[in-house]
Amino acid sequence: MNQVDPDLAAALPLAPSDPRWLSCALADLEAVHRDHLHCERKAAQSALSLVRSYPEEERLLLEVARLAHEETRHVVQVAQLLRKRGLSPGFDHGDDYAAQLRVLVRRHEPERLLDRLLVFAVIEGRSAERLGLLAAALTAEAERSDERGGGAAALYRSLAEAELRHRDTFLSLAAELAPRTWRARAAELAAAEASLVARLPLRARIH
Amino acid sequence: MNQVDPDLAAALPLAPSDPRWLSCALADLEAVHRDHLHCERKAAQSALSLVRSYPEEERLLLEVARLAHEETRHVVQVAQLLRKRGLSPGFDHGDDYAAQLRVLVRRHEPERLLDRLLVFAVIEGRSAERLGLLAAALTAEAERSDERGGGAAALYRSLAEAELRHRDTFLSLAAELAPRTWRARAAELAAAEASLVARLPLRARIH
Repeated sequence: MNQVDPDLAAALPLAPSDPRWLSCALADLEAVHRDHLHCERKAAQSALSLVRSYPEEERLLLEVARLAHEETRHVVQVAQLLRKRGLSPGFDHGDDYAAQLRVLVRRHEPERLLDRLLVFAVIEGRSAERLGLLAAALTAEAERSDERGGGAAALYRSLAEAELRHRDTFLSLAAELAPRTWRARAAELAAAEASLVARLPLRARIH
Repeated sequence: MNQVDPDLAAALPLAPSDPRWLSCALADLEAVHRDHLHCERKAAQSALSLVRSYPEEERLLLEVARLAHEETRHVVQVAQLLRKRGLSPGFDHGDDYAAQLRVLVRRHEPERLLDRLLVFAVIEGRSAERLGLLAAALTAEAERSDERGGGAAALYRSLAEAELRHRDTFLSLAAELAPRTWRARAAELAAAEASLVARLPLRARIH
């Protein structure tokens, strides 16, 4: 697995989340947990969709297959967290955030693959930021009281670390595919994502 | 993970494959390897589709999430086999076999879930049978000459064992969901599958 690479990260400068997002998430942590099962499921499905579309890209194939394997472990981990807390995941209510990012994917190759990789990198990067914020807040809270327990904090910290690696996997595949243009397109998509996040309502879920 | 359960297996008596299928598969083993990447991908996607549709079924959720995790490992393993042999997977040319089985799934719940579980059990059972036949033939061949190597035989044997466990997972979920009706429906679907297999052309792929 890749290590976090500061040069790759610099190519995708995501705007920090509105601090009110964290308050909103902490106010209904159970909703965050329940929704997160579906986030991890969709991440696995996205990786498998790349296996389906680009089986002939040798490096991509192995990288995204491994990534899907890791995301399915996250699905299991979140399902276990829900069970431990007696929470039912409920149904997936859709994801405006991801849907509106997907609209930005150009239709023709090779731009299409470049954009899919970069959009997945953006989603992983934002997930990592917010999971990291939640993990830090839950750790601080667990030090004051163990009412909500440290289990979710530790899980979210490990998920945040994995999402950072996944972001870098997607960025490095993008860099390999389009060495001359990927940075400019990454910057464009990061800016588009910032304005999308500012437009969407604050909700007790990662996106 | 479940052990293979003779009582569950007896409820799903699949007709043995036509012996000409094995000759056909051995005559173009590379085509089998290439197609199999997509078989394992689709198995992972099917399991994730159950996570999406039935997040509130507590036991099912964890079982199928674990199953998806295992199927994604198989995707990685088949991708590695292809790379080692210098084979490109190519694109998925669709799967009449699975598509025609899906047509048998009834539209309303709870019959719909029962049928989805049983159709997945049928597909896993047939995959296990054919992967087992291939593994045995390749092992016998590797003992005579190591031209094609034992790597594929060992992989296919381990995949066959996993598919048998998955078949039993689906059957035990079906038994739990519909204790009084699942056996009769399993027998119906096994018979439908036998006639479908007899109708489809023989091809150098698992289905």
